Amino acid sequence: MSLDLNSDLGEGFGIWRLGDDEALLDVVTSANVACGFHAGDPTIMRRACELAAGRGVAVGAQVSYRDLAGFGRRFIDVDPVELADGVLYQIGALQACARAAGTDVVYVKPHGALYNATVHHDEQARAVVAGVRAFGDLPVLGLPGSRLLHHAEAAGLRPVREAFADRGYTPEGALVPRSRPDALLTGTDAVVERAVRLATAGEIVAVDGTVLAAEVDSLCLHGDTPGAVEHARAVRSALTRAGVEPGRFVPR
Amino acid sequence: MSLDLNSDLGEGFGIWRLGDDEALLDVVTSANVACGFHAGDPTIMRRACELAAGRGVAVGAQVSYRDLAGFGRRFIDVDPVELADGVLYQIGALQACARAAGTDVVYVKPHGALYNATVHHDEQARAVVAGVRAFGDLPVLGLPGSRLLHHAEAAGLRPVREAFADRGYTPEGALVPRSRPDALLTGTDAVVERAVRLATAGEIVAVDGTVLAAEVDSLCLHGDTPGAVEHARAVRSALTRAGVEPGRFVPR
Amino acid sequence: MSLDLNSDLGEGFGIWRLGDDEALLDVVTSANVACGFHAGDPTIMRRACELAAGRGVAVGAQVSYRDLAGFGRRFIDVDPVELADGVLYQIGALQACARAAGTDVVYVKPHGALYNATVHHDEQARAVVAGVRAFGDLPVLGLPGSRLLHHAEAAGLRPVREAFADRGYTPEGALVPRSRPDALLTGTDAVVERAVRLATAGEIVAVDGTVLAAEVDSLCLHGDTPGAVEHARAVRSALTRAGVEPGRFVPR
Amino acid sequence: MSLDLNSDLGEGFGIWRLGDDEALLDVVTSANVACGFHAGDPTIMRRACELAAGRGVAVGAQVSYRDLAGFGRRFIDVDPVELADGVLYQIGALQACARAAGTDVVYVKPHGALYNATVHHDEQARAVVAGVRAFGDLPVLGLPGSRLLHHAEAAGLRPVREAFADRGYTPEGALVPRSRPDALLTGTDAVVERAVRLATAGEIVAVDGTVLAAEVDSLCLHGDTPGAVEHARAVRSALTRAGVEPGRFVPR
Repeated sequence: MSLDLNSDLGEGFGIWRLGDDEALLDVVTSANVACGFHAGDPTIMRRACELAAGRGVAVGAQVSYRDLAGFGRRFIDVDPVELADGVLYQIGALQACARAAGTDVVYVKPHGALYNATVHHDEQARAVVAGVRAFGDLPVLGLPGSRLLHHAEAAGLRPVREAFADRGYTPEGALVPRSRPDALLTGTDAVVERAVRLATAGEIVAVDGTVLAAEVDSLCLHGDTPGAVEHARAVRSALTRAGVEPGRFVPR
Repeated sequence: MSLDLNSDLGEGFGIWRLGDDEALLDVVTSANVACGFHAGDPTIMRRACELAAGRGVAVGAQVSYRDLAGFGRRFIDVDPVELADGVLYQIGALQACARAAGTDVVYVKPHGALYNATVHHDEQARAVVAGVRAFGDLPVLGLPGSRLLHHAEAAGLRPVREAFADRGYTPEGALVPRSRPDALLTGTDAVVERAVRLATAGEIVAVDGTVLAAEVDSLCLHGDTPGAVEHARAVRSALTRAGVEPGRFVPR
Repeated sequence: MSLDLNSDLGEGFGIWRLGDDEALLDVVTSANVACGFHAGDPTIMRRACELAAGRGVAVGAQVSYRDLAGFGRRFIDVDPVELADGVLYQIGALQACARAAGTDVVYVKPHGALYNATVHHDEQARAVVAGVRAFGDLPVLGLPGSRLLHHAEAAGLRPVREAFADRGYTPEGALVPRSRPDALLTGTDAVVERAVRLATAGEIVAVDGTVLAAEVDSLCLHGDTPGAVEHARAVRSALTRAGVEPGRFVPR
Repeated sequence: MSLDLNSDLGEGFGIWRLGDDEALLDVVTSANVACGFHAGDPTIMRRACELAAGRGVAVGAQVSYRDLAGFGRRFIDVDPVELADGVLYQIGALQACARAAGTDVVYVKPHGALYNATVHHDEQARAVVAGVRAFGDLPVLGLPGSRLLHHAEAAGLRPVREAFADRGYTPEGALVPRSRPDALLTGTDAVVERAVRLATAGEIVAVDGTVLAAEVDSLCLHGDTPGAVEHARAVRSALTRAGVEPGRFVPR
C-alpha cells in the first residue's frame, strides 16, 4: 500500500517566512509550491523547487487568487477568463523555476479561498481547469466530489482526490467550517489515527462519530499550524509502521 | 536584405492600456511582451501572444525590475540572485501564455531602467543573463557594446544588436539621455531617414552630424510615443521601398 | 435650487491614466478621488487635490477594496475589521494629500464592487461606516435605501443620497445590472433629460417607463465612459438653464 | 539624564509577522511604525498604534520606498516629487490609524535603503523633508551629519540625532556596511556597554578602538535580529541602573 502526502510550501514573501519548508520536505512526497499570487516570490519558488527536487518530492503549482494582502484566503468574484489566465501564468512561472531546479511541475492544486470556492462554484472550477489545460495535461488535486475534480475529469485531466489529516469532517463528508471549534483535529494522536485509518481502511470518522468511506489518492498535511512538522513526522512514521509506504501519486 | 523590427507591447495593466497593440503588431516582426513586473497582466499577456502568433510575429519576454508603480523606469539596486530569479519567473510566465497561444518565447529583452542599467552595470547584466540561461538558450536583445550582450555571448547565448529609430545618438554611439532636448527624433521624416540609412548603409548620424558605423540585427520602434503607430508604418513602408524586407531575427 | 455633481477622479496609476481629470473638474462640484487601493498613487492623488482645491471642488475619498489588478470591480469577501482599517488608511492618506493642497477630505464614497456590495451586504456596510467613523464625522455618499446609508445615519454620519445620470433604473429603483443592454443611457439627450427631470421634479424614469420619486443630494457623472466629458458639460449647462445651480452638498 | 529608545515596529504584512511588537513596546519609548510601503498593512498599523498609545510610546512614521518585495532595503532611483508624495501619503495613512488609536504621529524616520540613501543623497534627502513638511512640522529622526538632518533643520523641522546600539562604527563615525563581519555587535554585553557609555559619557567606541564623541537624542534598538528583545530589555535595565531614564524625545 502507498499513499501520497502533500503539503503547502514556499509560502513566504520577500523577507517574510511561513512554516519550515526543509523539515516538511523531509516528510511529504508532494509539495504544493506557492506561485506568487498569495505568497512566494521568484527566489523562494526556485529554492523550494531545488529542495523538492533534491529529495525526489513532486512539485505542484499551488495556484491562487491574486491577493498577497489576504494570503489568498478571501473569495474574489473574479472574471473566469482572468482566473484561467492567472492560473496559466502561475503554472508557467513555477515551471520555469522547476526546470531551473532540474524538475517539473507535475500537478496543480488551488489554494485557500480558491480551493474552497471551486468545491461548489461551477464557473470558477471550470476556469481553473481551463487554465490548467491551457498549460498542459496536468493532474488536479482537490476534494472528492468537488466541481473542480468533476471538470478536471471532464476535460481529460487526472483528478487526484485528497483528504485532510487534521480537519474535522461533517457527517456529509464536507470540511467543518474554520469558524467552528471542531474545525481542526489538534492532538497528534487524533491526526495520526485519522491518517492511518484512512490509509488502511479507507475510512474517515466525522465529528459526530459517523464513519465515512473515503477513497483518496493523497493526504494533506498542513505546514503552518502549531506543531505542523511534528504532526507530519508522526503521521509518516505511523503510516510506515502500518505498512503504508508514503509515495508520490505522480510517478518519478 | 532583411531587418527585424521590434516594439514593446502588452504594456497595460488591469483596466489601463498603453499604446495600440493591434496596430503595432501589423508593422513589427518581433514583439517585446511585458511580463507583469512593470506592466502586463495574465490576460493582457495571453492576448498579446495570440495577436502576435496570428501574425507570425516573434514573441520576446520584456523582463523588468519589479516595479508597477514606476513602470520599471527606476533603477533598483536589486540583489543579483533575486534579479536572475525574477527574470526566470517572468520568462516562464510568458512562455505559458505563448504556448497557450500556439507560439513560444523566442528571445528576451530587458525593459526600461534594467535595459539602461545593463549597458554598464556588470553585476546586473550577468544576473539577467543568468536568469535567461536558467530558462534556456534564448537570444538576448540589447545595445551593441553593452555588458548585457557581452555576458550573453560569453554564456553561449545569441546576442542580438539593436538600434533605435527615434533616439538621438551621441558621437560616441551612446543614446542621448532622455533629459536632453535632442533625446528623441520627433519628425516622421527624421525617423524614416534614420531607419533607411541604418538598414541600407549601416550608418547612424549622431546629434552633432558624426556618421557612426552601426551593424545591427533589429530596429526598435517605440509604441507609446505620440504618433508611434504612424512612425512605425512609415518606417516599414520606406524600408520596403528601399529593398529591405522586414523579417524576424529568429526564423519561424 | 441647487444640486451637487460628483464624479470619480484620479483613477490612473503610475504611467497609466483614465479619464480627463481637468476637464471634469471644470464641471463637477465634488470629486471622488481614488486613494491607491483600486487606482491612484500619491502623486496623482496630490495633484487631483490641487486641481480640485483650485476650483473650489469638494474632495471626497473614493475608498475601495485593495485590488489594483481588478480596479476594485470585483467583490472580495474581506474580513470586516480589515475592511474598516483599509477605509481608515485610505481616507488618512488622501487627507494628507488634501491638506498639502490646502483643502480637506469632506466626504467618503465607496468605489465599484464595494459600492455595490454595501447596498445589501450588511456586514461590509457596517465596516465601511466603522472605518469612516474611526477617521471622523464625514458624510457618506451612497445609494438611497442602501445598507451603507442606513448604517451611516445610525452612526451619526450624514447620509448623502445620489442618483446616476447615465444608469438605467429598474421599476423598483435599483440600478440595472451592467450585464444588461439597458444598463447605460448612452445618448447625451437621454442623460441630460434624466438630470433635469431629477433636479427639477424629483423624478427618475425607469427602463419600463415607470416614474420613480427620487429625492437626492448629488448626481453622479461618470468620467471614464466614451463621451463622458461632453455628457458632463451638457448636463451642467442644461441644469443651469433649468434654474438648478450646481453646488457642493458640503458647504465650502 | 534621559534618553529616547526607538525601534521599528509593525513590520509584518497580511499573514506574515516580523519581530515581537508587544515585547518591544514594553521597552522602547518611540515606535517607528511601518506605513505599508515596505511592510505594514492597515490592520497591523492601527493595532501597533493602539499598543503604543496604551503604553505612552511615541508613534513615528517609518517611511520607505514602495517595495514590499524588497522590504525597502534596495535603493530605488525614484523621482523626488514621487518620493515626497509617497512620504506624505504614508504619514497621512499612519496618522489616521494613530488618531483612531487616540494618539498622533509625532515624528518621521526613513526606513532601510531610504535611510541609508538620505545620509548622502542630497536630492532624496530634500524630497523626504519636502514630504514631511507637506504634512506638517514633524521632527525627523536620522543619522547625525546626514543630508536628511541638514535639510530637516534648514526647513525648520527638528532634527533628531540617533545612534545604534548594535551597529559597528568606523573611525570616521559612519556605520560599518552590513557586508562586513564587524557590522553588528552581537553579544548582549557589547550592546549594553555601547548604550551605557553613549548615554552617560557621550562616546561610541569604533571598531578599531577609536573613541568617538556622540551627542544623540535617541538610541535605536533593532527588533528583528536574533535576541532582539533580550538585548532591548538588557539595555533598558542597564541604562536605568546607570541613572539614565528612558524617555521620549517628543514630550507627551
